[in-house]
Amino acid sequence: MTRNETLAAARHAVAGLARSAGAVSIAALLRDEADRAARLSVDAAGLHLDLTRHRLPGAGLDALLALADAAAVGARRDAMYAGEAVNFTEGRPALHVALRAPAGAAAATGASAASGASGTIAAEVADTLDRMAQFSDALRDGAWRGATGRPISDIVHVGIGGSHLGPQLACEALLEYAHPRLQCRFLSNVDPQAFDRAIAGLNPHTTLAIVASKSWHTQETARNAQALRRWFAEAGIDQAGLRRHVVGITANVDAALGFGLERSSIFPFRDWVGGRYSLWSAIGLPVMLAVGPANFCAMLAGAHAMDRHFAEAPPARNAPLLLALVSLWNTLALDGATEVVVPYSDALRSLTAWLQQLQMESNGKRVDRDGAPVAWPTAPVVWGGPGTDTQHSFFQALHQGTGVHPVDFIVVVPARRDPEGRAEALLANALAQREALLHGRDGTSGTTGDPGDRSAWLAAHRACPGNRPSSLVLLDRLDPARFGALLALYEHKTAALGWLWDIDSFDQWGVELGKLLASDIEPLLDPARELPADLAPDLRDLLARIRSARA
Amino acid sequence: MTRNETLAAARHAVAGLARSAGAVSIAALLRDEADRAARLSVDAAGLHLDLTRHRLPGAGLDALLALADAAAVGARRDAMYAGEAVNFTEGRPALHVALRAPAGAAAATGASAASGASGTIAAEVADTLDRMAQFSDALRDGAWRGATGRPISDIVHVGIGGSHLGPQLACEALLEYAHPRLQCRFLSNVDPQAFDRAIAGLNPHTTLAIVASKSWHTQETARNAQALRRWFAEAGIDQAGLRRHVVGITANVDAALGFGLERSSIFPFRDWVGGRYSLWSAIGLPVMLAVGPANFCAMLAGAHAMDRHFAEAPPARNAPLLLALVSLWNTLALDGATEVVVPYSDALRSLTAWLQQLQMESNGKRVDRDGAPVAWPTAPVVWGGPGTDTQHSFFQALHQGTGVHPVDFIVVVPARRDPEGRAEALLANALAQREALLHGRDGTSGTTGDPGDRSAWLAAHRACPGNRPSSLVLLDRLDPARFGALLALYEHKTAALGWLWDIDSFDQWGVELGKLLASDIEPLLDPARELPADLAPDLRDLLARIRSARA
Repeated sequence: MTRNETLAAARHAVAGLARSAGAVSIAALLRDEADRAARLSVDAAGLHLDLTRHRLPGAGLDALLALADAAAVGARRDAMYAGEAVNFTEGRPALHVALRAPAGAAAATGASAASGASGTIAAEVADTLDRMAQFSDALRDGAWRGATGRPISDIVHVGIGGSHLGPQLACEALLEYAHPRLQCRFLSNVDPQAFDRAIAGLNPHTTLAIVASKSWHTQETARNAQALRRWFAEAGIDQAGLRRHVVGITANVDAALGFGLERSSIFPFRDWVGGRYSLWSAIGLPVMLAVGPANFCAMLAGAHAMDRHFAEAPPARNAPLLLALVSLWNTLALDGATEVVVPYSDALRSLTAWLQQLQMESNGKRVDRDGAPVAWPTAPVVWGGPGTDTQHSFFQALHQGTGVHPVDFIVVVPARRDPEGRAEALLANALAQREALLHGRDGTSGTTGDPGDRSAWLAAHRACPGNRPSSLVLLDRLDPARFGALLALYEHKTAALGWLWDIDSFDQWGVELGKLLASDIEPLLDPARELPADLAPDLRDLLARIRSARA
Repeated sequence: MTRNETLAAARHAVAGLARSAGAVSIAALLRDEADRAARLSVDAAGLHLDLTRHRLPGAGLDALLALADAAAVGARRDAMYAGEAVNFTEGRPALHVALRAPAGAAAATGASAASGASGTIAAEVADTLDRMAQFSDALRDGAWRGATGRPISDIVHVGIGGSHLGPQLACEALLEYAHPRLQCRFLSNVDPQAFDRAIAGLNPHTTLAIVASKSWHTQETARNAQALRRWFAEAGIDQAGLRRHVVGITANVDAALGFGLERSSIFPFRDWVGGRYSLWSAIGLPVMLAVGPANFCAMLAGAHAMDRHFAEAPPARNAPLLLALVSLWNTLALDGATEVVVPYSDALRSLTAWLQQLQMESNGKRVDRDGAPVAWPTAPVVWGGPGTDTQHSFFQALHQGTGVHPVDFIVVVPARRDPEGRAEALLANALAQREALLHGRDGTSGTTGDPGDRSAWLAAHRACPGNRPSSLVLLDRLDPARFGALLALYEHKTAALGWLWDIDSFDQWGVELGKLLASDIEPLLDPARELPADLAPDLRDLLARIRSARA
């Protein structure tokens, strides 16, 4: 068979098994498959992953592993680590693994870095980290001062998408490691109310703004940066003083210089860092300011440990790959399944939003490497929210709705104990929801007070069918290393899915069109401007309505 | 035909048309159906709703309206307003409309209130509102003081699910109307880190806690309330002083008295107020404290205006009903469609979470009134997040993913102008994304620099197919009345869908099981306790792992 024929046969086998597995009993698999826990749970980089509770029989897993082999996932991973142009529509590498490789470790990770440029990249990465660390130390020590000589107490990080979600998630997740004097806020939306909220109560003289934009021209970030410059100016901080209050993170150093920044206050990153993989680059500066260089590097080291696991563990014991294979299976076996992410941890409350971008922006694609329509549905919807909150919200539909939506339970073992037993309640609820989804109940208990017919009728309303799939990721602690490993686990899951679907997980052409149209439409909001004759009637009506509301 | 036969025929007609409409061109419908805008856009209670951009031809709308008639949606709405037991599994009315009816307006709304008790209910509602207003005035004026004589500056509202999501959303949405001295925070999760975050920087002597729990025993809220009592006590505020710092909202007045509250500090609500419809009840107290009684009543009046519209507008011009019918259509016409909610408003950033509970907890059901399996899939997944943020996150998948997910654009016309044109950019982006989803692009523009074959290949990667459905809800301003109307619009949409599916939208049996299991599991976390012999092996392993991580 040719390579393509092998791939087609492997896909055919998976699809055939998945079609008949939609209704398989998870409880029966757990009971009957003696090697199930051994095959479907794995420890990696300090995380424990349990994938046993899916409607995936052993034969399905065999077929999935054969598919991963036929799709050359291993070779593609190696190509990514080696700096080849895995972002093939843009002809660029995706080298986030290089950002967290310890100096000189390229060979040990299985990566040889970008062809011919490995030394350069490693040196650049180390240099940027050094500069970030020096700046962090100065700011945290109080040596770096504002224009009027006061130490910085508040940081406003301005960025959107990947420049926002990763840093905010990390600052929240590692709050217990944060510097007590420094408060971080995040400004992403172009809505002026978001700006007002970000600066509410802040003193410009003790505030540092970080402006993060790869191109420096991201419209939201650029306008918010201008508004911040105005805010500083209104407080008497002039263009010279501004250099003590604004630093930039960008791949467009010249534009940042033009804005008025000092060269030493610009932290560069390169075009081989994708926005949604950029936390590990200079984009992580607010995280380093908050938790310090040592904890930031521990986060990188945790991600690197997962990078090594992904590179070195055999496919059948490879956590990110197994996670990807189960996800793929669910898209085929379960009609209309989405992916629900429920962290039982207040500190991880923004994980869902980060994963949404990671998975849906990476794999929300419809053509394959050849430009032909993809064979299978890609990028299921990712959504969710923190437990126990969401138990009182959408969990009703998970238990009793008509749709089946697998849940990723992200469970952190709490170190603390408190008189009210809240930590124990949090843990117990996570475990209880997993049990409830799996086992359900027949609904008759508690209805016996009702007379005959009504009792059966009420039981039908109370019954939970169970057999609802879930994954578990267990963290013994939420420390910087485990947090880094958790993010890298999902990054590699996402990349592996892209290779299984044979799409480009590293481009994002779909976001371009809206930006173009927005710049066409914005001038039409001006009431002094005549609306073009060829405007669609409904857009014309809507613009007229908006203009009149603003008049 | 019997009533059931008529209903079955109406369902059959809708399903048949929907099956063939999945691929219909929205642009063609907009071009060819002369009455499309007249039929599918409607103004109600200060909101403008545009449903023209769905794959729903006129004949489909006819069939949906016939289904609404056959399902007796109008009669069921009237029964709800009249206080009949529309929550039929629990034998209870759902009378949130009574909470926002002006005194003496029952007849005018088409509602006659609960049989024989209409006067009692109206009087109770008015009495509770009066007591809330008196307390609000005292607290806002600074007349209500803490135990050591200082006025209150910070409010911590403790509640989860419906006791949390509505009040938080309303406080954020109406921030521009809020009292400048009072800051509201919300504590829902049982995770001790959530507690730490809620009280960070607060002075117990100037803080008021509101404990909101219908039963007073909701586990998260009860434990957080105990932790707050401890926090106050540690600041020297004893049981007597506590009465100046904690008020309760509950249907279990005795339990709140037992906790140590004064009777006059307990604001009751009744069992005919469902958690997810409770913002309008005493649960809205933090909102009234923030924005004052007049603005709170304006919010009620806006919701009431939508209640009247829902009661009085004919089905073909009825905004909540049309919204429900389009939602139903999409579940049938589009494979695996979810509902994406994107408010272009920082102030409405929590709308998605509120809607998630409202729609998924209400309609995440699988048996109908007779206890038989429902005919159709219920309660699509609701998710989303604020624009423009989410344009830089999951919008890629909306434009170029293989799945089709209709988007509700919630657009607020900003009154302000600012030097950076941020408000205009926000608006322009909302309009541009609607255009991009509808029209897509062929992908060839900008690729002409590439040689022949590669140019076509790149165009395939850049192409956006368009024809992606969306709804628009336009608010000329985000004032209390329009905000109330917006929430009531979705409440009635949700109820109408429940009647179309013939399920109970007002119970939530699925959340009960997890609570029971959690109380079984919690003691097993104690390392001193022997694990029961009949525990499933995987749960035993997990508990052992957790115990050892905590050791």
